[in-house]
Amino acid sequence: MAVRPNIKIKKRELVDAPGIFKHLIAGKREWLSKSLTLVESTKTEHRKIAKELVQLATPFSRKSIRIGITGVPGVGKSTFIESFGLHAISKGKKVCVLAIDPSSEISKGSLLGDKTRMDHLSAHSDAYIRPSPTSGALGGVARATRESVLLCEAAGYDLILIETVGVGQSETKVHSMVDVFLMLLLSNAGDEIQGIKRGIMEMADILVVNKADGNNSQNAKVAANQLQQALHYFPLGKSGWTSTVDTMSALNNEGIDKIWTKCNQYIEHIKLNNFFEQNRKLQAVNWFKQSLSEQLTQRIEQNDSFKKKLAETEKLVENGKLDPFIAADLLTDFYFK
Amino acid sequence: MAVRPNIKIKKRELVDAPGIFKHLIAGKREWLSKSLTLVESTKTEHRKIAKELVQLATPFSRKSIRIGITGVPGVGKSTFIESFGLHAISKGKKVCVLAIDPSSEISKGSLLGDKTRMDHLSAHSDAYIRPSPTSGALGGVARATRESVLLCEAAGYDLILIETVGVGQSETKVHSMVDVFLMLLLSNAGDEIQGIKRGIMEMADILVVNKADGNNSQNAKVAANQLQQALHYFPLGKSGWTSTVDTMSALNNEGIDKIWTKCNQYIEHIKLNNFFEQNRKLQAVNWFKQSLSEQLTQRIEQNDSFKKKLAETEKLVENGKLDPFIAADLLTDFYFK
Repeated sequence: MAVRPNIKIKKRELVDAPGIFKHLIAGKREWLSKSLTLVESTKTEHRKIAKELVQLATPFSRKSIRIGITGVPGVGKSTFIESFGLHAISKGKKVCVLAIDPSSEISKGSLLGDKTRMDHLSAHSDAYIRPSPTSGALGGVARATRESVLLCEAAGYDLILIETVGVGQSETKVHSMVDVFLMLLLSNAGDEIQGIKRGIMEMADILVVNKADGNNSQNAKVAANQLQQALHYFPLGKSGWTSTVDTMSALNNEGIDKIWTKCNQYIEHIKLNNFFEQNRKLQAVNWFKQSLSEQLTQRIEQNDSFKKKLAETEKLVENGKLDPFIAADLLTDFYFK
Repeated sequence: MAVRPNIKIKKRELVDAPGIFKHLIAGKREWLSKSLTLVESTKTEHRKIAKELVQLATPFSRKSIRIGITGVPGVGKSTFIESFGLHAISKGKKVCVLAIDPSSEISKGSLLGDKTRMDHLSAHSDAYIRPSPTSGALGGVARATRESVLLCEAAGYDLILIETVGVGQSETKVHSMVDVFLMLLLSNAGDEIQGIKRGIMEMADILVVNKADGNNSQNAKVAANQLQQALHYFPLGKSGWTSTVDTMSALNNEGIDKIWTKCNQYIEHIKLNNFFEQNRKLQAVNWFKQSLSEQLTQRIEQNDSFKKKLAETEKLVENGKLDPFIAADLLTDFYFK
C-alpha cells in the first residue's frame, strides 16, 4: 500500500530483535513494516532494537540491486516506478520501493503518499512500497532509508528502488546508497530538456526522457539526441560506463523493456569490472566516516559553552573579522583545554 | 620571480608580527616573501606568528578580486597568466600569482617553478609570483594558499590569480577561495574539446578555448560554439550568471582583452546582485566549519586507542561485517566513555 501503514509496536516486542528478525526473513510483511518503523524512530528504546535488526540484516545485502530514481516533480516518477516495478516483477524480481523526501514533513508526505499512485504495483504481492519517513532533517531521513534498504533486502526483496523528490541535497544522499542512478527528464513543447539540476545530471548512469508520447514523441527523441551529444562533455566516471539517454512513455508503457535492459547491462558492466563491489565498499566507508564525524561533532556541541562560543565565532568569521582557520584553531583549543 | 625565493627568516624577526606587517603593507616584497614562507611553514613558532599576520591582514581583503584558473597540463595556463596578468597591469592593477599544486612535492615544483615561464610578468614591478608550497597534503597547501591570498592583498595586490594544475581535488579547493573561476580548454585536431574533467566544468564562470591560433583557429571556434550549446545543460548557479565560452590565443596575445572584459562583466554582475559579498561570507563560513571539523577529528585521533579502534572498525565496515551507522555509534561511544 502506498499509504504509511499504521502499525503499532508493542512494548513486549521491543526486547527480542532476533525474534523479530526471524519473522522478517520469513517474508512477513507486517514485521517488515514494524521493523522499518523502528529504524525510522528516534526513540532510544526503538533505536536500540533497530540497530540490532540492522546488524542482523547486514550480511543479507549482497544479492540485491539498488536503483536510485530522480527527477523533478512532474517528470512522472511514480508512473515510471509503477511500470518499471511491474516489469521487474514479471522478470521474477521482488521489488521494494523506498523514498527520500526531506520536504515530506511540510508537504505532509505527498511523495508516495497519494493513494491513487502505483495502484497496480502496491497491490502486488511481490512488491512492497514504503513512503518517505517524515522526520524532517535530511541526515536522519537518509540514515533511516539506508537502514531500511538492508531490512528490505533481508526480507527477500532483491530490487530496491529509491525515489528522490529532486529537491535539495536528497539526490546526493540517494546516489551514495545505490548501485545505479537513473534520472528522469522531460522535453518541453520545443525540444529543450526540462528538469536538469546543476550537479545532478553528472551523477546519472542512465538518463531517460519520459513522456515521449503523443505529440511529444518526436520532440522527446530530438531532445534525447541533443542530450546524448552534450554528454560528450561529461567524461567517464570511475565506473567506466558511458551514460546513455533513452526515451520512453511510462504512461503508454512503451520503452520500459529498453530501460530494464539498459539497467541490467550497466549492472553487468560494473560487476565485470569490479566497480560494483568497490563502490559498495566505498559507499559504506564514506557513510561511516561522515556519520562518525557528525556524531563526534554533535557530542562536542552538547557542551553548552562550546556551542555558545561556536555561534559567536561563526558570526565573526562570516563578517570578515576573524580568519576561518584561526577561528577553527581557537575553537579547537577552547574545547580541548 | 618564478623560482621559489630562498629567504631566511631570522630568529629575532619571529617575535614581532606587527613589525613585519608594517613592512608588508608598505609593499616591501622581501617581507611579503618572508611572510608567505611563514604561512607555508608547519613549524610551531612559524605558525604562531603567521596566524598573527593573517589576522592583521584579514580586514584588507575587501577590495581585491580573486580569480581561479584551471585547465589540464598543456592547456597553456602559464602563457595565459602571463598575458592576462600583463593586460591587467596595463589597466592599473597590481597582480599576484599563486598556485595550488599538491603534486609539486613529487614533480619538484614544476608548476610555476620553470624559470623560463612568465618571464615578462615576473620581471614586472607590479607583479608578484609565488610557486605552490610543496608541503604535499592538499589540505595544508590550500590553507597556506588561502592565507597567502590575504597577505598579498594586504601588501597591495588587488588582482589575485590562483593557478591550479588540474589534477585531483585542487580545483575544488581553489574554487572555494575565489570570486571568479576560469577554465582553459583546448580543441584538438578535430573540433572536440580536450581537457574536460567531470565535475569541474560546472564550476567555471568563464570558459576559454585557448590556442585558437594558426591552423587550429577555426576548430577552436567550432568547438567553443558546440560547448556553448552544451552549457545549456548546466542550469544557472547561485550567481545567476550564464557561463560563456570564448576563444583566444595566449601565444599571439589575441583575445585577452575579450577575456578581461568578460571577467569584469562577471564581477560587476555579482557585485550588483550581491552574490560577490554573499559568496565571500559563505566561503569563509565553509572554510571555518570544514577546518573545525578536521581539527577536532585530528585531535581526537591523537588518542592512540581511538585511532587503533578506528582502523579496526573501518575494516569491518569496508568488508560488510558492520553497518556504517552502527560503527559510528560504537566509536563515538568508545571515545566519550
